[in-house]
Amino acid sequence: MKRVEPAPWVLAIPPYVPGRSKEEIARIYGVSTPIKLASNENPLGPSPKAMQAVQIALGSSHLYPDPDSRALRGAASRFFGCAPEHIIAGNGSDEILDIICRAFLRPGDEVIIPECTFSYYAIASQACGAVVVPSPMSAHRIDVEGITARLSPKTRIIFVANPNNPTGSYLRAREVEALILAVPDSVLIVVDEAYGAFARASDFSSCVPLTREHGNLVTVHTLSKSHGLAGLRVGFGIACVEVMDSLLRIKPPFNVNNLAQKAGEAAMGDDRFLRETLRVTFKGLNTLAATFERLGLSYVPSQTNFMLVHIGSRCAQVYEDLLRRGIITRHMASFGLPEHLRVSVGTTEEMRSFVMALEEAL
Amino acid sequence: MKRVEPAPWVLAIPPYVPGRSKEEIARIYGVSTPIKLASNENPLGPSPKAMQAVQIALGSSHLYPDPDSRALRGAASRFFGCAPEHIIAGNGSDEILDIICRAFLRPGDEVIIPECTFSYYAIASQACGAVVVPSPMSAHRIDVEGITARLSPKTRIIFVANPNNPTGSYLRAREVEALILAVPDSVLIVVDEAYGAFARASDFSSCVPLTREHGNLVTVHTLSKSHGLAGLRVGFGIACVEVMDSLLRIKPPFNVNNLAQKAGEAAMGDDRFLRETLRVTFKGLNTLAATFERLGLSYVPSQTNFMLVHIGSRCAQVYEDLLRRGIITRHMASFGLPEHLRVSVGTTEEMRSFVMALEEAL
Repeated sequence: MKRVEPAPWVLAIPPYVPGRSKEEIARIYGVSTPIKLASNENPLGPSPKAMQAVQIALGSSHLYPDPDSRALRGAASRFFGCAPEHIIAGNGSDEILDIICRAFLRPGDEVIIPECTFSYYAIASQACGAVVVPSPMSAHRIDVEGITARLSPKTRIIFVANPNNPTGSYLRAREVEALILAVPDSVLIVVDEAYGAFARASDFSSCVPLTREHGNLVTVHTLSKSHGLAGLRVGFGIACVEVMDSLLRIKPPFNVNNLAQKAGEAAMGDDRFLRETLRVTFKGLNTLAATFERLGLSYVPSQTNFMLVHIGSRCAQVYEDLLRRGIITRHMASFGLPEHLRVSVGTTEEMRSFVMALEEAL
Repeated sequence: MKRVEPAPWVLAIPPYVPGRSKEEIARIYGVSTPIKLASNENPLGPSPKAMQAVQIALGSSHLYPDPDSRALRGAASRFFGCAPEHIIAGNGSDEILDIICRAFLRPGDEVIIPECTFSYYAIASQACGAVVVPSPMSAHRIDVEGITARLSPKTRIIFVANPNNPTGSYLRAREVEALILAVPDSVLIVVDEAYGAFARASDFSSCVPLTREHGNLVTVHTLSKSHGLAGLRVGFGIACVEVMDSLLRIKPPFNVNNLAQKAGEAAMGDDRFLRETLRVTFKGLNTLAATFERLGLSYVPSQTNFMLVHIGSRCAQVYEDLLRRGIITRHMASFGLPEHLRVSVGTTEEMRSFVMALEEAL
């Protein structure tokens, strides 16, 4: 039987390997209720206001969602401080990244992506037949000069996560501005601010206001972490109307689930939940920093809700040992950092369990 | 300011025009609670078992959904009668169509699409830079010979909706088999069975069993209509493992919202709701057929949950008049049928209101 050939670049995308669920890990390691500090989820659960909104909307689940996500984008407009016409809503920020790639990439185009960052930028680019040009990190930080040195006539998109996942580091406002100035207007700069809500550094700035002045800038946002809606998939892209015109032509008509629209709208009005999330996150980061210092482990100061820590040559064993003690962290081998773990901030109690388990595992 | 150029085919996709919401129509036409018979939604609401499952899952909304949709695909496996390895779950069947196009189309490839069918096949194809080759209808039916006559060395995908939207007609099992036999193995045949649950004709057959034998066949399914989950976005693709391998490389990791996974899983076990849906649908179709006959209007016999009716040269006025009377139908002008309306089946009461309004509007 002759095979239907996929587009030639598709087979270059790594085949999908299903991960182990919390339940599987619990079973394999004989742990009853593992603590998951592996996916940067909100330890407080979902925004309560969001859950109330879902309850109310439940009975309308047989009706198609609003294709324009009007109410959701209205709430995003207030939350991010920009006009709704400059906002596109997506099925998580992953879909926003996909839509950006599909709107702007042709097979063979080049995309510059820092070496140690969120893995979906490369996958979304490769799915469009683009060529990923990796740009080296500098001491776990994204390096603006490294990026601009890799510009070529074929460069079409640059992806920058600010703050960056999985390092937790950030680019200062003037570094981002330098990047924008150094890049030709014909190259799209995508600044992913998935963790922007957690950035406390005085010289960090969201790029949202800059999207008004720069026609080649898109910022990307998610409610997965700061608002506890990872399971509902709500993300945004913010850009000028010209870029928006192309993104909207690609956007599928009913891309954001109705319950996700309602939850996202309510969550962005849940100031109290966001405040509490930040309080717990900052407290957790302080605990992690103090613990790593006490144990003599070097770590990257974090502007996010997780921390990258250097465990050393025994890292794989420590990772496994933590699993046996019921703590799921993320081993960074697939990011080229086999001696590092990424640890998400948990509740005060979860942080205490992690610290005890780490001390024993080391 | 130099503009970032989108991929050249993107600007050929029609710019997105936001539709009017039920609320807007109510306001414009001064109607308090309009009856919407325009989107083929389930008039009974969502499956009650699905809503119970959402309630239970609500508290886990801060956790990422299962990237493999394992439980959902397990339920689909029982419902459609095929192994879970042959099933991919999507954010509605729209996403399945997108993933198919992204996995198999290269810019310049040809896609054969019947002239009067679901509009997203063309959009999803154009978004990948493919060329849409329209295939003419024959008396509101998809014409297999018309499709095979348009095969060329550049043909990569053929889309067939069975039963077809917006005509409500269907292809007999032997017509589908003839199509599969006539098409080279290197061309993918996508049979969209979004309305398959409503097909009663004795010579209609689902293509799911044929996906085992044919490596170039994908069937597409949705829970939007039969299970009342349009707002939650749950769709499936069913194909052999070779096709599945390509689709899974393109599938975004967290594409199906957690509540949608739980709702879909429960809905497919809600036999009672599906039975009641079919009972109400068939009753509504009988009412529509009897009404159109009585009023001397020709219509297409339907294997779906809607009916295409020929109103004549006054169709646009009748459509507007129905709106003023609080009934929203779909005027088929954008499908090249300016003299036709598509009317979704509603509850017995909604059907009664529609019949009264139509009699007055004609």
